[in-house]
Amino acid sequence: MDIAMPLYDRFTALDAVGPYEVLSRLPDTTVHFLGADGTGPKKTETGMLTILTERPLEDLPHPEVIVVPGGYGTRDLMRDERVLEWVREAHATSTWTTSVCTGSLLLGAAGLLDGLEATTHWSEAGALKSYGATYTARRVVEQPGGIITAAGVSSGIDMALRLAELIAGRVAAEAYQLAIEYDPQPPFDSGSLAKASQEAKDHLAARSG
Amino acid sequence: MDIAMPLYDRFTALDAVGPYEVLSRLPDTTVHFLGADGTGPKKTETGMLTILTERPLEDLPHPEVIVVPGGYGTRDLMRDERVLEWVREAHATSTWTTSVCTGSLLLGAAGLLDGLEATTHWSEAGALKSYGATYTARRVVEQPGGIITAAGVSSGIDMALRLAELIAGRVAAEAYQLAIEYDPQPPFDSGSLAKASQEAKDHLAARSG
Repeated sequence: MDIAMPLYDRFTALDAVGPYEVLSRLPDTTVHFLGADGTGPKKTETGMLTILTERPLEDLPHPEVIVVPGGYGTRDLMRDERVLEWVREAHATSTWTTSVCTGSLLLGAAGLLDGLEATTHWSEAGALKSYGATYTARRVVEQPGGIITAAGVSSGIDMALRLAELIAGRVAAEAYQLAIEYDPQPPFDSGSLAKASQEAKDHLAARSG
Repeated sequence: MDIAMPLYDRFTALDAVGPYEVLSRLPDTTVHFLGADGTGPKKTETGMLTILTERPLEDLPHPEVIVVPGGYGTRDLMRDERVLEWVREAHATSTWTTSVCTGSLLLGAAGLLDGLEATTHWSEAGALKSYGATYTARRVVEQPGGIITAAGVSSGIDMALRLAELIAGRVAAEAYQLAIEYDPQPPFDSGSLAKASQEAKDHLAARSG
């Protein structure tokens, strides 16, 4: 099975690597990191981390699974008709078309979310509406047509475990969860808008501003 | 602040990228991915993912924080006296020396865990003993001397949030948890040896064998 993960400059590393760490364990499966904006090194938003891509999107027009990670760089991709056309064409034959974080905005820009429920990073909830999608604050949103969107950054791990179950069955997916020792025990309970304190939200707003 | 993360061929991607995604948000901080076995591209165990390193370990002898990710490649590093010497020297002046997964075996081989409690991936629990450490099945283990070890793969996210709290305070760390929307909701509860079903364990054992 071929899994296509488009990468681009200013992607968010965990959006891509969380699902990779789960899905690369599927039998007879290759996760392909494809250059969406040309091949070569792709840097995260901070510029501190670089993942290499050796092939362009066009090399893999018909993957069984698509995983679009998010990041600030999606803003450019959403205006790139070449990328949008690849997404449409690949989705036409894929079994699963998925996204993490603001990766869903790319699916939206390609016209794939019209009339559907979807999720994204909580800070971009409003952006989905312009693509005809209804934002829902769930962590993983499955819709008809094999479309699955995940919420912000770390939610890609949860999405990938569900996707692994859909592809290889529950026992296999549970085995991958054990392999990556995913028994989460965050030291705080601040991972969603509903749970975070006002102080934490203010801290984040001050840093982003 | 300088955070050093040694990379090497056959590392586990999420071991490195989980902590990166948290710690790169600390103010005035750079996460440096350093080539432990020479600079250049470093591939994960599957060969599907490549992270670039541009500088060798020796370029950063005195980072404030060390994060050693795990992976099959640690087996070679543990026999590389140049790498072990860097770990010892860097630890002598670091504020925090940490590991994820089998990264703790490298700390052990460098002599840093003698007489301490520590953790690692559940499958390598027995290996810590030969370094004078006592394996403990906790997800994040803090010890005197600024040493923090984390359990398998995904536990690096939890470790990094705790480390962020120690460095920048609780509100900042909670803000980073919100930024990466880390409100984990795995679809199963199979992330530890104690919780996984026998079927999941058997599945994993059959694949590893």
